[in-house]
Amino acid sequence: MADVVKIGLIGLGTVGSAVLQILKTNRSVIEQRVGGKIFVKAVCDKKKEKENFAKRHKVAFYTDWRKIVNDPEIDIVVELVGNVPEARDIILWSLEHNKHVVSANKSIISKHWEEIFTLANKNNKLVYFEASVCAGIPIIQGINEGLAGNNIRSIVGILNGTTNYILTTMSKNNVDFGTALRIAQKRGFAEADPSLDIDGVDTAQKLAILSSICYNTWIKYEDIYCEGIREVDKVDLEFIEKEFGMVLKLFGIGKFREGAVEVHVHPTLIPKTHPLANVDNEYNAVLVYGDNVGDVLFYGRGAGGRAAASAIVSDVIYISRHIIYGTAGKIPYIVYQRKKYSVIPMSDLSFCYYLRFTVEDKPGVLAKITEILGNNKVSIASIYQKEPLLELHKLVPIVMLTHLCKEKNLMDALQQISHLKILKKKAVYYRII
Amino acid sequence: MADVVKIGLIGLGTVGSAVLQILKTNRSVIEQRVGGKIFVKAVCDKKKEKENFAKRHKVAFYTDWRKIVNDPEIDIVVELVGNVPEARDIILWSLEHNKHVVSANKSIISKHWEEIFTLANKNNKLVYFEASVCAGIPIIQGINEGLAGNNIRSIVGILNGTTNYILTTMSKNNVDFGTALRIAQKRGFAEADPSLDIDGVDTAQKLAILSSICYNTWIKYEDIYCEGIREVDKVDLEFIEKEFGMVLKLFGIGKFREGAVEVHVHPTLIPKTHPLANVDNEYNAVLVYGDNVGDVLFYGRGAGGRAAASAIVSDVIYISRHIIYGTAGKIPYIVYQRKKYSVIPMSDLSFCYYLRFTVEDKPGVLAKITEILGNNKVSIASIYQKEPLLELHKLVPIVMLTHLCKEKNLMDALQQISHLKILKKKAVYYRII
Repeated sequence: MADVVKIGLIGLGTVGSAVLQILKTNRSVIEQRVGGKIFVKAVCDKKKEKENFAKRHKVAFYTDWRKIVNDPEIDIVVELVGNVPEARDIILWSLEHNKHVVSANKSIISKHWEEIFTLANKNNKLVYFEASVCAGIPIIQGINEGLAGNNIRSIVGILNGTTNYILTTMSKNNVDFGTALRIAQKRGFAEADPSLDIDGVDTAQKLAILSSICYNTWIKYEDIYCEGIREVDKVDLEFIEKEFGMVLKLFGIGKFREGAVEVHVHPTLIPKTHPLANVDNEYNAVLVYGDNVGDVLFYGRGAGGRAAASAIVSDVIYISRHIIYGTAGKIPYIVYQRKKYSVIPMSDLSFCYYLRFTVEDKPGVLAKITEILGNNKVSIASIYQKEPLLELHKLVPIVMLTHLCKEKNLMDALQQISHLKILKKKAVYYRII
Repeated sequence: MADVVKIGLIGLGTVGSAVLQILKTNRSVIEQRVGGKIFVKAVCDKKKEKENFAKRHKVAFYTDWRKIVNDPEIDIVVELVGNVPEARDIILWSLEHNKHVVSANKSIISKHWEEIFTLANKNNKLVYFEASVCAGIPIIQGINEGLAGNNIRSIVGILNGTTNYILTTMSKNNVDFGTALRIAQKRGFAEADPSLDIDGVDTAQKLAILSSICYNTWIKYEDIYCEGIREVDKVDLEFIEKEFGMVLKLFGIGKFREGAVEVHVHPTLIPKTHPLANVDNEYNAVLVYGDNVGDVLFYGRGAGGRAAASAIVSDVIYISRHIIYGTAGKIPYIVYQRKKYSVIPMSDLSFCYYLRFTVEDKPGVLAKITEILGNNKVSIASIYQKEPLLELHKLVPIVMLTHLCKEKNLMDALQQISHLKILKKKAVYYRII
């Protein structure tokens, strides 16, 4: 049993600075919860100019992370360096050097799941990573422990604050994607290069983590079908809301059956009455369906330094309690079992779809499109033909909702329709759940 | 280290039966999570006729719970006997007899908090009670561990499925309280004697538990101000929704400052855009505000045998893991510290209020009421005078919203107004948050 826990913090960005701040300002309640003292022994950042910040907190400062990982006195390494190759090294070296790890690194953790948890369990070390998904919302522990009495059947989540902010802004302010992105960037909700967010990569990494926990295995990022929101047109947001009473959200979806999973990320239509429909702006939410508990929703701010730091500090508290009481690492946090699962290909899944075709306003156009859809077993639930969008060119949008049909059939149909001369723009499709 | 964990289950009602069923049907995934075997050694119920059920599950059956508590082989006692005095004995005796405890008993746990957790911590035993608040929603662990890096500033919760079902039914079906109660009873959402639910007692017990966790102390049920929904009139639900775009919910509210808390249960008005406004029917939700994480919402089904059993089984899994790995009870689950806190009296708190007066349709009536309100420093934000409700008697409702004012001032004003002859019914008031 120890009476003080020593922390080394690597990466002094927004989140790292917030962690240091919280450990200082909330010290008394934190130590009460830990049952002992917590002491940040050293911090590290590649940027030399961060030294002043460390000095203000009276903490040793290094630019080389090895100084922290090699320090035999440090019990917990908090890794907050972001998506860089060193992150993997920091985590693995820490585990090799008798340290527990707290990380917020969704990309590295989803990418190196097997390596990290095999080593952690072999060396009786803990790796906690609550902040890697939905910042401060305790969703990882919630699924891993709080809902452990369930077979988790599905996860549907708004896992990325940037894209949700952009979609909300497009819809509420009636602006196009580019404008909404610039607003998000100005307000600090999107990075200068927003690709990882808007192309769905970040959502897919988080979905990989949540799915791996549900299934006690490693669901790989590469197995996740992924579409982003780059091409979302505000015209569709209007149709969707006004004509159909629905909203568009970027979802990470996982569904689990015995030995087979489906995991996909894409913009998705949901009715306004859906529990996830009012999750707006930078907020995140995850709807988990367990076979016993039914639906459980977790909701909160999905971004921001202090929200993420909240989860990191909670992880530090949890591990520190175990260090103080001499039980840290005796029980693996993540049960990892190498087992086969098959990912159901996207083409075999079935959805209802929203479709929009931009066509010439000529007789027979609708007949041609519906014929191709019918030939491919795509059955139409309703059709809305609107006034010409551009009077000059006599272009009209035809909007349809389909009944449930196989993705492959729809894709075949869209492929054939794309060759029609009457089609003046790429067809738009969104899945509905 | 053990390789099998032995369970004794006391109380074979809806929840107990569901627990036994889940431990059987989900056995393989549960044992995978535990890292060892779980074995229900014996069950107990006062009703002899439950023996057949036990036989079908091939489990020893007793009518006397002492047989289970005294069995030296049993590791975990699951106490599901409900709000009866034996429940306290079962929990305390189990802790004295070297057993960990899982309980769903909100009344006993909130009432005997100090006794239970002092003994548990003294004897290095665990008491888990996730199912006592919001059934399967992992809110206790969420606050206690997942949000540990925060000072929790407030909790606002719809904690009781029965009252939420009744209020939803009144509002959606436009029926009165009695009718909605009978519908709830018919559909299994209200008991034959629904007093504990509709008078807010159940909500207050759950609020006591959540507040005690936030504050690492014991917030007592008796310290919680409590109003139920028995007198809610559908007339107000209509006004509230149509005129003000709000809904009425029974809330448990806790707010925490250094050394001082406010804890109260009452029907409360919230705007339709509030995250809790769409929590309908038997669903529960808790909005927690942490100083770092901001708002976090937990939502799910708040009632039902399997939803509660989900939480109980999750608790059993957690404790069993620790038994298997030899760490159970080395760390207290609930940090309990006897410390003073002061409860701010309800009369010192301030709210905005919705008021409805039923008065004679005579000149000068409004002047009299507003004069008394003004004299008591209750300032009016808006007034709605409606057509007579009952043409015959010339009674009219006057509906008002107030600015923020002290509860004491409003109560004084209502007291004085109650003496006016023009007032034909007791004034209705609801707090707004």
